[in-house]
Amino acid sequence: MVDIEKEVERQFKILTRGVEDLISEEEFKSKLRNSIKNNKPLVVKLGVDPTGSDLHIGHAVQLRKLKKFQELGHRVKFLIGSFTAKIGDPTGKSETRKMLTSEEIAKNIKGWLDQVQIILDLDKIEVVYNGDWLEKLTLEDTLKLLSQFTVAQMIQREDFAKRLEAGKPVSLVEFMYPILQGYDSVAIEADIELGATEQKFNLLRGRDLQKNAGQEQQVCMMTPILVGLDGVEKMSKSLGNYIGLRETPNDMFGKVMSISDELMWNYYELATDIELEEIAKLRKGVENGTLHPMDVKKRLGVEIVAMYHSREEGEKAREWFENVFSKKNLNVDLPEKEFSKGEIKIIDLIVKELEFCKSTSEARRMIKQGAVKIDEDQITDLNYIVKLEKDFVFRVGKKKIVKIIVK
Amino acid sequence: MVDIEKEVERQFKILTRGVEDLISEEEFKSKLRNSIKNNKPLVVKLGVDPTGSDLHIGHAVQLRKLKKFQELGHRVKFLIGSFTAKIGDPTGKSETRKMLTSEEIAKNIKGWLDQVQIILDLDKIEVVYNGDWLEKLTLEDTLKLLSQFTVAQMIQREDFAKRLEAGKPVSLVEFMYPILQGYDSVAIEADIELGATEQKFNLLRGRDLQKNAGQEQQVCMMTPILVGLDGVEKMSKSLGNYIGLRETPNDMFGKVMSISDELMWNYYELATDIELEEIAKLRKGVENGTLHPMDVKKRLGVEIVAMYHSREEGEKAREWFENVFSKKNLNVDLPEKEFSKGEIKIIDLIVKELEFCKSTSEARRMIKQGAVKIDEDQITDLNYIVKLEKDFVFRVGKKKIVKIIVK
Repeated sequence: MVDIEKEVERQFKILTRGVEDLISEEEFKSKLRNSIKNNKPLVVKLGVDPTGSDLHIGHAVQLRKLKKFQELGHRVKFLIGSFTAKIGDPTGKSETRKMLTSEEIAKNIKGWLDQVQIILDLDKIEVVYNGDWLEKLTLEDTLKLLSQFTVAQMIQREDFAKRLEAGKPVSLVEFMYPILQGYDSVAIEADIELGATEQKFNLLRGRDLQKNAGQEQQVCMMTPILVGLDGVEKMSKSLGNYIGLRETPNDMFGKVMSISDELMWNYYELATDIELEEIAKLRKGVENGTLHPMDVKKRLGVEIVAMYHSREEGEKAREWFENVFSKKNLNVDLPEKEFSKGEIKIIDLIVKELEFCKSTSEARRMIKQGAVKIDEDQITDLNYIVKLEKDFVFRVGKKKIVKIIVK
Repeated sequence: MVDIEKEVERQFKILTRGVEDLISEEEFKSKLRNSIKNNKPLVVKLGVDPTGSDLHIGHAVQLRKLKKFQELGHRVKFLIGSFTAKIGDPTGKSETRKMLTSEEIAKNIKGWLDQVQIILDLDKIEVVYNGDWLEKLTLEDTLKLLSQFTVAQMIQREDFAKRLEAGKPVSLVEFMYPILQGYDSVAIEADIELGATEQKFNLLRGRDLQKNAGQEQQVCMMTPILVGLDGVEKMSKSLGNYIGLRETPNDMFGKVMSISDELMWNYYELATDIELEEIAKLRKGVENGTLHPMDVKKRLGVEIVAMYHSREEGEKAREWFENVFSKKNLNVDLPEKEFSKGEIKIIDLIVKELEFCKSTSEARRMIKQGAVKIDEDQITDLNYIVKLEKDFVFRVGKKKIVKIIVK
């Protein structure tokens, strides 16, 4: 008995790392206990909509959690919302999402799985498609699902409430999303469903439907939303504040180095597997001045590159970064961009061609601050015309660097 | 051309009699015009839920309207909500209705049709069941329907809004009712849908869905709710303020005689086929004193009995009523009720056995007023014990009479 309880505590600790909300701790421990006692793995569900976005380290938070479950012997069901993608769920967004076609969905699923296998071994998990059961539902089945919920319950969901209050349309079809997500849990008899904290409403619907179906209710395990590089918005491709799983080691490392010292601790906890005790030590070191934050951030960069490429490439990326940005040594491989001979306005080069700045006004500010360099020459003239005659290194600020190749 | 316009006007006049709301007059005339020009009958839809109630002259308002369409050569589709009955629509009610089983529905449908044929020749109309197409809908089809409506639109429906405001539950399944009713119109390509005014929201959803499906939108023809005998509430079986289509001539006639003089005009218009000009004349006669309201009401009674039995039986019912209540001649057939020898408290006889009064307090009031008679003897003692030894005529008020047979 003692061993079982120890094992429950051990698994509980590993699995709840970085978890913000758990419904409920007691039920989770009880499920772990039964699983260990009866040698019966828990069914862990993560549902995703194949909506075509590139995976980034924000998505990875849950995928890595799945991996932990898998490593502990549980049964991971990676649920692809092949059917629900047709609806689109507006959680956290302010507008009704367009329905996807079957072709778009098939293409997106392929793209997702290609990226998921960077983290999970697809051969060791079960990939299931909710189209397999949802396509079989009739209108009558649907009505039975609908009859289990009231309008008042649905409009409690924050984003629905906000949009209704603002007079923005909420399509009735969107009410179906949380219900079908819940029904998926019934269909696969999930023991645990993973999700982001903003998914709480939807995750709880699974508990409702399982209860009504006479099943044991799933535990809802919610991880926080990973904040983007800007330290403000949720990490997302559309905001450009993300680290993609398929980015190069140098890009990943450089992006890690661009985050604030405070945000770094959040990434340490959510985006790496470093022991929490170790992270606490690092933090203490920075606080009492025995560690330099820049060094701790570099370690974070190495860790993240190591996860998606290799530790060796992580170390190389650190060297490259140090060479270019600290030692100003440009005898390293730099990203290159080819141009034909000619000339171009400095602002156009920065904004339009290289996309180093998001706007003309940001580019003007960088020029005025003396942050723009052609080789080692500062350019401070806003109307400067860059002559494209021979190769040169072009920099904007501390992190943006490119070798311009003139052909 | 002149003849077509005349025919349009003729049909329009007949068909819009007693109609309270028409969406729209212009579209209706245009549909009639095309129908007459191309000799193509209009498809007229009346949907009913087989919820098991007895039909009364309130239901008959629309059934009789269907008959008019039929007489003018249009194609009547009497739509039985064999599928939607499973949902239940709370229009005009304050609570979620229970879902019916298939067995209850089949039994109710039979009961309804038995009564409907009192008015309509079932061989000459098409009886269709929405289960025939709704049972085939998949979840995906359902989502396509849902995607055409927003939450804000749905909660505009008065009864939904009221219940939500009062914190009473509105099941999501109820939102499906108006949508499926609308889809029925698409399925049968209805030109016109009949309904009560309180059905307006649902009828309009048919127009929405037909428009989105590329069909010509149906005309919504709404008749007022028939007020019950009490002159206050909607006519309904549960309130006991109704005239059932299967009641005896004497009961029908007696109930007509019990309504107020003012309500009589409403019944003349909605519950009979007497020309509106004729009704106007009668009204004028009563107003200027050339006609006695009692006589006009008796004519209404004869007309209503004539519609559901025969004119002869209508006249007989009038005679019976005059004999019993005006001439106090009891040498006529009276309703009879058998009792075993014994004795019974007067209040129990009135309330429990004969149901002449709804409550003990009403019975006490009638006794005090001297309105209770055994043969010709007034009973004014509230505690009177009726001796059941030989037959007698028992009366409460002017309209309740029975012959007590003692065996």
